[in-house]
Parts: sequence; C-alpha cells; structure tokens
Amino acid sequence: MKIYEVQAGCTSLEGLRQAERPDPQPGPREVLIRVRATSLNYRDQMIIGGQYFGGPVDRNTIPLSDGAGEVAAVGPGVTRFKPGDRVAGTFFQGWIAGPMQQRHPALGVPLDGMLAEYRVLHEDGVVAIPSHLSFEEAATLPCAGVTAWNALMVAGKPVKPGDIVLCLGTGGVSMFGLQFAKAAGARVLVTSSSDAKIQRACQLGASDGINYKRFPDWQKEVLRLTSGHGADHIVDNGGPGSLTRSFEATAFSGKVALIGFLAGRAGDINPLTLMMKGGSMVGIGVGNRAMFEDMNGAIQVNGIKPVVDKVFPFDQAAAAFRCQAAGDFIGKLVVTV
Amino acid sequence: MKIYEVQAGCTSLEGLRQAERPDPQPGPREVLIRVRATSLNYRDQMIIGGQYFGGPVDRNTIPLSDGAGEVAAVGPGVTRFKPGDRVAGTFFQGWIAGPMQQRHPALGVPLDGMLAEYRVLHEDGVVAIPSHLSFEEAATLPCAGVTAWNALMVAGKPVKPGDIVLCLGTGGVSMFGLQFAKAAGARVLVTSSSDAKIQRACQLGASDGINYKRFPDWQKEVLRLTSGHGADHIVDNGGPGSLTRSFEATAFSGKVALIGFLAGRAGDINPLTLMMKGGSMVGIGVGNRAMFEDMNGAIQVNGIKPVVDKVFPFDQAAAAFRCQAAGDFIGKLVVTV
Amino acid sequence: MKIYEVQAGCTSLEGLRQAERPDPQPGPREVLIRVRATSLNYRDQMIIGGQYFGGPVDRNTIPLSDGAGEVAAVGPGVTRFKPGDRVAGTFFQGWIAGPMQQRHPALGVPLDGMLAEYRVLHEDGVVAIPSHLSFEEAATLPCAGVTAWNALMVAGKPVKPGDIVLCLGTGGVSMFGLQFAKAAGARVLVTSSSDAKIQRACQLGASDGINYKRFPDWQKEVLRLTSGHGADHIVDNGGPGSLTRSFEATAFSGKVALIGFLAGRAGDINPLTLMMKGGSMVGIGVGNRAMFEDMNGAIQVNGIKPVVDKVFPFDQAAAAFRCQAAGDFIGKLVVTV
Amino acid sequence: MKIYEVQAGCTSLEGLRQAERPDPQPGPREVLIRVRATSLNYRDQMIIGGQYFGGPVDRNTIPLSDGAGEVAAVGPGVTRFKPGDRVAGTFFQGWIAGPMQQRHPALGVPLDGMLAEYRVLHEDGVVAIPSHLSFEEAATLPCAGVTAWNALMVAGKPVKPGDIVLCLGTGGVSMFGLQFAKAAGARVLVTSSSDAKIQRACQLGASDGINYKRFPDWQKEVLRLTSGHGADHIVDNGGPGSLTRSFEATAFSGKVALIGFLAGRAGDINPLTLMMKGGSMVGIGVGNRAMFEDMNGAIQVNGIKPVVDKVFPFDQAAAAFRCQAAGDFIGKLVVTV
Repeated sequence: MKIYEVQAGCTSLEGLRQAERPDPQPGPREVLIRVRATSLNYRDQMIIGGQYFGGPVDRNTIPLSDGAGEVAAVGPGVTRFKPGDRVAGTFFQGWIAGPMQQRHPALGVPLDGMLAEYRVLHEDGVVAIPSHLSFEEAATLPCAGVTAWNALMVAGKPVKPGDIVLCLGTGGVSMFGLQFAKAAGARVLVTSSSDAKIQRACQLGASDGINYKRFPDWQKEVLRLTSGHGADHIVDNGGPGSLTRSFEATAFSGKVALIGFLAGRAGDINPLTLMMKGGSMVGIGVGNRAMFEDMNGAIQVNGIKPVVDKVFPFDQAAAAFRCQAAGDFIGKLVVTV
Repeated sequence: MKIYEVQAGCTSLEGLRQAERPDPQPGPREVLIRVRATSLNYRDQMIIGGQYFGGPVDRNTIPLSDGAGEVAAVGPGVTRFKPGDRVAGTFFQGWIAGPMQQRHPALGVPLDGMLAEYRVLHEDGVVAIPSHLSFEEAATLPCAGVTAWNALMVAGKPVKPGDIVLCLGTGGVSMFGLQFAKAAGARVLVTSSSDAKIQRACQLGASDGINYKRFPDWQKEVLRLTSGHGADHIVDNGGPGSLTRSFEATAFSGKVALIGFLAGRAGDINPLTLMMKGGSMVGIGVGNRAMFEDMNGAIQVNGIKPVVDKVFPFDQAAAAFRCQAAGDFIGKLVVTV
Repeated sequence: MKIYEVQAGCTSLEGLRQAERPDPQPGPREVLIRVRATSLNYRDQMIIGGQYFGGPVDRNTIPLSDGAGEVAAVGPGVTRFKPGDRVAGTFFQGWIAGPMQQRHPALGVPLDGMLAEYRVLHEDGVVAIPSHLSFEEAATLPCAGVTAWNALMVAGKPVKPGDIVLCLGTGGVSMFGLQFAKAAGARVLVTSSSDAKIQRACQLGASDGINYKRFPDWQKEVLRLTSGHGADHIVDNGGPGSLTRSFEATAFSGKVALIGFLAGRAGDINPLTLMMKGGSMVGIGVGNRAMFEDMNGAIQVNGIKPVVDKVFPFDQAAAAFRCQAAGDFIGKLVVTV
Repeated sequence: MKIYEVQAGCTSLEGLRQAERPDPQPGPREVLIRVRATSLNYRDQMIIGGQYFGGPVDRNTIPLSDGAGEVAAVGPGVTRFKPGDRVAGTFFQGWIAGPMQQRHPALGVPLDGMLAEYRVLHEDGVVAIPSHLSFEEAATLPCAGVTAWNALMVAGKPVKPGDIVLCLGTGGVSMFGLQFAKAAGARVLVTSSSDAKIQRACQLGASDGINYKRFPDWQKEVLRLTSGHGADHIVDNGGPGSLTRSFEATAFSGKVALIGFLAGRAGDINPLTLMMKGGSMVGIGVGNRAMFEDMNGAIQVNGIKPVVDKVFPFDQAAAAFRCQAAGDFIGKLVVTV
C-alpha cells in the first residue's frame, strides 16, 4: 500500500516521503480501514518540524492523526463494525470515556497516523461518522472537532442557549467551535487578522468579528460588543499574549478553554482578572471516544458541515503542509487518499 | 384600580370576581408595575377550584402568577429598574439563585397575583423581558417558561446538541420545552392526543409526533423512532400512568423532569426500568430569578417567540379559564389588562 | 478446579451444586485469578431463586458477582497486572468509565461468577484491591461497595462535609454508604427493625438510628432529628412503600438514590413531595471501573474496613445463602474459596 | 462606639487610627451586631498599605472584612435573626447564592469593616455561626474559611474521599483547606518554609509536609510522594512562580484553585503542562452566603476548630497587623473587640 512517512529525525517538510508498506491485516478485535481522506492539524506541522514533545520522531512514522474511510475487513471478535461501515479513528487510542486519567497513545505520534491507503485499528479506537458527511468532511473531526466539542460542551460548564462564546482565530478548532456554539443556541464572536475571514465566519453564523490588527486590544471590543458582559466561553489557542487578554474578556464565572499547542511557550500571564471574576481556565487535551460519538450525534441532528477550505490529492500532501504553514485558509485542509 | 379576586373559600370559577382596590404605591426597593398582560397555568385552575395545596384560598386573592407590563414608578433605593422598563414578576418572590432551599412565597398563592391593573413587587422579584416580545408573549414566561428552562437546562444534566428530548403533551411547558430544546440543538419528539396539535408542534420544530390515542404504548414508539436509544430528557407532567411509561422511554443515563401538578396523585409506578439504565427523575419546582434571566438571554439570542394560542380581554378572564379547562389549545392562553 | 454452579432452570437453593471444571488458561489480555473469597448480594439470592430478569438461568452458571484473589498468571499483552497482584473483578465487564450507556454483561449472570477456585477475566475487568484489606474484606467491594460509592459520590450531587445522609437498613450497601458518608464528613442516620443492628451502626459512626418497627412513619423521625431539614441524600433499596416515605424525608434539593432490586415491584408512589422540594431520584446500576478505583482510593486513605458479619467455608456456601435469606446479619456475608 | 479607621489616603500602618463614631441603629431588615472578635487577612494588609485595587481608600474606612459577635437588636421586618443570636457578617454583602455574576460590595472596602464595637448589616448579609466555636474562632470564617470552602468543595470539581489535596503554605486559607479536605476524606500535603509550621500542619492531619527551602522544586516532591499521581486539587495563593510549579504538580484532570491576592502580579507562566493533562485553574473570589452556611454545617458536624495562632486585644490592633506582616504564624490572627 501507499503511505507517507515522516522520516526518523525529521525536522522539516523535506523529511516527508511517500513510501510503500505491505497491506496490513486485522487481528482479533481489529478493523482494517480503507482510508479515503485525511486532515491536517497544527500538531502535524510541529511533528514534521521536529518541534513536538520529545523532538523529532525516532522511527519512520505515518503522519496525520485525522482520517476517515470505510471498513474493508474486520478481525475475529469485532462487534462494533462490519465491512462497508463509514468510520474515523479516534485521536487517542484507548481513551473510551470519562475524564483524562493518563496520556493515551495518539495517532500520528507515537502511533502511525492516517496518511496511508490502509490502517488497522482496534475497534475501540474507531467511530462511525455522520451519514451526511463526505469522507473529506469527516476526516476533519478527530482532533479539531473533538477538541472544540470538549472545550465547549464537556470541560467546565457546557454552552447553553443565550451564552456568549468567543472563538480566537478562524482555524479548525475555532470554526468547529463557532458551529457547535451556534448549534447550542449561543451568540458567537470571532477574532481574525483578516476581514475576508471574518466575513466567512459571519456567514457561518458569527454575530460579530473583531479584526485584531485594527483592534490590538480586542478584549475591549469584546466587552463593548457585549455591553460589558464579556464572553461566557472563550476558545483560546494560547498564542503569545492572548491569555491575559482572554482573561480580561471573560464574563463573571466565565471559562477560557485552552486548546492549543501554541500555548507551549511560557509567557507573561496575569490571572488576577480571571480570579476576581470567579472565572476558570480549562486545559483541553482533545477528547475521548464518547465525546466523539456525542459530537457526531450533534453534527447529524443539526446538519453541520465542517469547513473544508481546500482539498489536496494524495500526491500533493506536501503542498497541503505548505498551505497550512502559510495560514491562508479558514477551517480545515484535507488530503485525499 | 381594577382587579380580579378569587374569593375566600372559592372552589369553582363562580368565585372569580372582578373588583376594585386602591392604586398601590411602591415602598423602599419596590417597583410599581402597570400590568399589560397575564397568562394562565394549570396551577391557577387548581387554585380557583380549591384543589391547590391547603385547599381553597382563605382570603380574597388576586389570581395568576404570570404577568408582564411596564414599570410605572419606583420606590426609594431601587437600582435594578427605572420607569418605562418592560418587566415581568418572578413566580417565587425571594428565590434569587442557587438550588431550592426553602419554599418561597409565590404569586397567585399565597401572594396576590398579576390579574390587576397595577402590582407592587420588590425589585429583586422582577426581571426585564426580552425586547422582541410583546407583553402578551412575555406574560407566558414566569411559570411555564422558567419551568421548562429549569427542566431542560438546569436540573440534572443540561440538554446538549444532538440529544433526544421528549415533551409529553402540547401544553405551555411542553411547547417551551420544544423551543428551548431546539435552540439547544436537540432532536425533539412530542406526544399528543390530537393530530392537529402534533402538526403544529412539528411546525415549531419537532421531528416526530406520537398520537397516544393511536399508540397507547407510546413509549414503544419513542424507542422505535430513536432506533432503541430512547429519550435523553423527558418533560413529564406526571399524569396518571405516564411516569412508568416515561421510565421505559428513557435512554441510558437519561433524565425524566417531573414538572406537573398532575403528579399530585399517587399511582402505581415502577422505577425499576429507570434504575437498570442508571436514569434519574428530577422534580422541577419552577425556578429562580437567575434561571429566568438566563432563559431570557436564550430567548433573545435565538429569537424565540412563545406559543400564544388565544388572547382574551380583561373582562373575559373567566372565558380564558373555561378555555383552559376544555384543553382545546396548545402552548399558552393570555388575558390582557 | 472446584466450582459451584447454579443449575440451568434453577428456582431454589436446591439447584446450587458443587462441581468440577477444567482449570482455565488466560488468553490475550486476560488474567487468571486464584479466587480466595467471595461475597453474597441479594441479587444472587434472586438468581438462585429464578426470580432475576429473564427468569431462571438457562445454562449451568457459576454464581456470585463478587470475589477477590490473587493473580496466578497473565496472558499475552497484559499490562495492568502481574502474577501475585491482589485483585477483584468488576461487576460489569466492559464498563470502564463515564455514564452508563448500555447494559454490559455482569458476573454471575449472564457471565460466570466468582464462586470458583479460578477465574479468567479480561484485564480491563479487574482492579487492584486496597492493601490493608483481607481477601474476605475485599470480596465485598464489587457490587455493594461500588453501588454505595456511586449512590453517594457520583450519581447526582456528591456528598460533601456537613450533609445529612440517610441509609435505609443495615445491609451491605447501607453499611458501605454509612462508612463512605462518614469518610466524606457527613452526618449519617440509619433505619433498622433491630435495636442491636442500630447499635452496631452507631458504633460505625451513625449519629442516630431509627427503629422503623417502633416508628413506622420513620420519615417523621428523620425530619424531627434534623430539625425539619430532612436528608440531603438517601440510600433506598426500594422496598415496598419506602420510596414515598423517602421522598417525604428528603431535604430541599435532596437526592434519593434507588439502589435496590427490591424496587422491582411496582407500587403506589407519590412523587409530588419530591417535586415540590426540587428533589431528585437517581437510579444506581452498580458502577464502572473508574468508580471502583476511586472508591478503593477512598478506602485506602481513610482506612475503611468493610463490615463482614460472617465468613463461611467453601463447602458451606449453601449455608451462606440461607443466612442471607434469614436476614440475621449486618453488612456482608463472605464465602472463602 | 469605639472603632478603628483606615484614614483616607492611607498607605501604611501609620494611617490606622482608633476613633469614635455614634452608635448605629438598625433600619428595616437590618441587624445591629455587637462585634466580639475580628480577624485579619492579607487583603487588609494591602488596604492599609494603599495597594489594594484602586489604591488608597478615599474616605475614612473601618477595616477588616471578618468579624463575629452577637445580635444586639433587629430592625423592622427582620426574620432571619433575633437578639442574642451568635453571628458573622458575609464578606460580600448581597451575594446570596449561585455563581458570581457581579462584584458585590465587600466589607472593609468599599464598605466599612468589622473592627468596631457595633456594626449594622442587612440581615441577608449575616449568618449564624457554629455553636461550638468561640467568637475568636468564628471571626476567622468569612474570608479565609469561605475561600477555602469554595476552592475545595464548590468551584470546579469538589474534593471526594481518597483525593489528594495540596495546600501551599500555612496561612489562613491553607489551614482551612487542610481541615476541610481532611473532613472530606482526602489525603493532604502542605508546603512551607518552616519545619515547625510543617509539624503543626501534620498535627492537624497533613500526611506530608514539603519544606520548599530544602526542595525549591517542590512540585517534584509532590509527584514523588504520590507515586507520580500528583495532586487532584491544589490551593495556590499565586505567589511569584508558584503557578507553573503547581501546574506540574497537578494530577490528570486535576484542579488548581487560585485564591490569592499575591496573584496580582503578572509573571512568567507556562500553562502547557496543565493543558496536556486536561487540568483546570479556577479563580476563587471568596464566596457567597450559601457557601458560608454549608461550610458552617461542615464545621459543626465535623467539630472543626479554626487555627487561631494569636489573639490581640482591641487596643493592640496595630500589633496584629505587624505580626501578620512578619509572617511568623500559621492559620489566623484575631483582634478582640
């Protein structure tokens, strides 16, 4: 089968190579998935760049945690799926339900990811995808979708109708956040450096967009647009300097969901404003299978379509990574298989 | 001012009389409300019938817990409102926030209700109403609206997008439940004895209606329509025999919100099915002011319009009660002032 | 190996027979447990009596869901345990964490139970036991212990210091409830038909015991002893007539945990008192592995010793069942292996 | 009556003066309290130093948010108290229950505090104190006690038996945290710069003390002492550099309660470790009256005695402030009236 590999020791896109591996076979309780589409996250960029936890990968690794396809075969004892089922793998393999109690192995690192014609996964690490989604759309769900769902509907207090939700930026998690928050009856504000991106976010249901180039103190705009109330929920990727502003933009008893790997860098943070308002910050480590399944139910009932900005053919996977690095997109980038 | 009174000892609609009382004046921290519209609940029917807790009223009492109007004047020290504000009274006077810890006095009994040209209430027992609602629409909120909000968004686990919600009947609480659950991204099923009412509920967003005359074992229809999953949330008014069926219709870890005064009669109930599924039953005693305000935010953001079936002029309040007793309506009945 | 079997079609203790089966071997991810002690629950009594769901067992089945022992061997791929570890099986096999979403198979029915010299279980259905407990003590945990933990610390609102907890009766779940509630800083009341049992419960930390033979309206005693407050949490086995009394004994916003198989019989229940106080009833279906592990942590930190009333040798298992049927014990009955 | 005043513009202890004011009288729904004891918090130190929010006080203000005494008289309409009742004022006046939704005025600033022979408060801002506490002990509850209760039993997830709780330092909030966590069945670790203080904390029930002078990387000691698990709950006063260490000491899905005014200074904080473990940080703004009452119930049922290190007579209030600034105490300092 055809696959891509991040070469051992890889620190740049040069180390991403197409390769061949033998077709895998499903063992007991495993399913063989014919992958049809995959999707990129910022984490994948870091892995290829050798900047992810622990540095460069130490063995040739199939990249991309996110992919969808159909079940091609099932091993002995499988009860959750049958050949032909449309499915996706879960980001963490082994985290079924309940709060995070350990760091389960994730697809992409340390486990092989989804950028391959076939993948074998334990049936417990696979979920059915919503019937109205294409494989390209479904491929965006495992990391960005589940992270947004966890951030808004599970961790801390869930969004309820009438709440005010602020999504920082227009990347994958933020656009899912926008769509889930709208489905939950909230008013949604977004920030961006681009009026064009803001316009697209407003077409997706955002009530207001704040261009942080024009309003570097965007937290003040949030307060102004909400008559001083602030945001009940904030989806924050933790870029340099954003947390302190988010804390100022938070409503009393509000919640900042910290979702991003950008938060890896320490920085000057002042949590006093959050404390004075009885607010909270919750760390979001993607999520478990139960969250994925609940999210899929929400997507199905509400007819949500993930925001896929561009689709690249398998042979142009490197172009997808370059597009992601350039940042000229909203929502998600997809590579078909 | 003109008022209606339920006469002391009243046990039927004969005891509802129009009368005159002196215009009231607001004292410290009180607001004077010029009532514009009021709304009926089944509880009011019981009060007039002398069947409410403790039997007939023991003094002439202005009926109806629910009403809306504008602030005509404010007493010393009032900070929450000013003349001209559009407001409604809260069902319980004194329950500001947090779980129920005592039985606060309610409008209609033991306190005078809203079927009067003017009413004076403590500012803490008053809330602003959504700007897009007429007084007739806003008058329906204090009891039925807040009960549905509490049942679905506060008590036990809140509704989240993708959940399945079952509303029994098409009365006021159920129609609010339908609208709030839809706003929260849920799929909603309703039951009714009337295909016409089911049709109206479906126009309001219900995905399915079950005519319980054709399907006396309606719980089986709920399971069939949800592929065996059942309902994650059920709004049950506790009519004879409904609870055991609701327990059978409940999903694993599901919740039955018991909202009704119909539940007053003991009956044969089998909680075993609920127990085996890890389900719960929560008793809903209307709700507090914070819930009312949160609900108003949800109504505002989602542009929800309460279902007002018929509006009666002040002089025909008795006709409104007769209409309610006949049951030939959905949602709410309103009496203007 | 020596085992006991409930004979297919069994409807009385006559159908419990000692037998031999080949020694089992652990497969992939399975552990072989040398069982040292087992414990009885009322459910086992029902199974032997042919009164459990679905009637008599349809194949010869090893009884008793609860047992503890040491790991004798592990199959390929096992990571959670090693030979020599002191362990117990979980009641439900396969329910790892999170709310109940399906009915997993349980030990005793439909799966073989623990009354055997050896048992093979998947490593995911096994937990380590607290180091200060004997096998006899640890054998009492899987059903009664986890049920009490779920009822008080997980389902609905958890017990917090200063809460008032009422445990009905002095059986296994109630005595665990008493011990867990005390560990959590609550005041605990118990009911019993026996002053001697009440005395033992008070030695275990109960502040008050109510003899329901002397006080058939025991709910009034609960209110009197708590200055009218009532119980914030009630552990109710659902015996005939108890639920309506429990609802009357419940505090505002209180919770009744329905734990028992006695609740199987429908009965005249009046939920109105519960509704008026904003109370709730939660159905407890034992619990998941995460609860078992959390409970073990609580037992360890607080030095809790389960209440084992009598220990029977393996050859006298039938005597243990007769003792349980007679009801002349508190806490748990154990059969060693 | 005799009082102390922080002089307008005060920036040091020099500005704390004893003075006389007329005896106050209770108005409608107000109670007159004969104050018997008061207690100091770090916040009071900041107020006198002119470092509290908004700078120095702009009018002569009676200091100290915390005090207890007996009701000397009640105004018209008071129902919650009668003369002779033993009471304390709530830190925030007007926050009855539910999450923080606004910043209510607090005693000490902007309202007059408790360092006076008499104080008049609205009955809604007063609570009964536990019967087994002296006035000196009860005076410590309103700020430090309620903060610790909120941090551990209300905000985010509450402590349950078997949890691991880490209290940073041996000040008032930490010592209450230790006592409440022990009452809730947790294992408690403390940090301090003093072995003598650690010894006293262990006498109060701490299982382990970490001297952070000997172990500047105290977070590693926390992990070592808990076999790598970390702390499920951390009470952190937000001193420079502590938050990043706390995040490293946090267990998966653990919670850091940020309680302190020391957190006012921005600093280099790395939230990545918290995010990777799905942990959270909650800001604690003291708490509401319902928390105070729940806490008092817990104190009563568990016979908890607040840790009062030193008691100063009224005339030596300045000495109490100097003692607090020197830091040579654990728990609380009290000034009698």
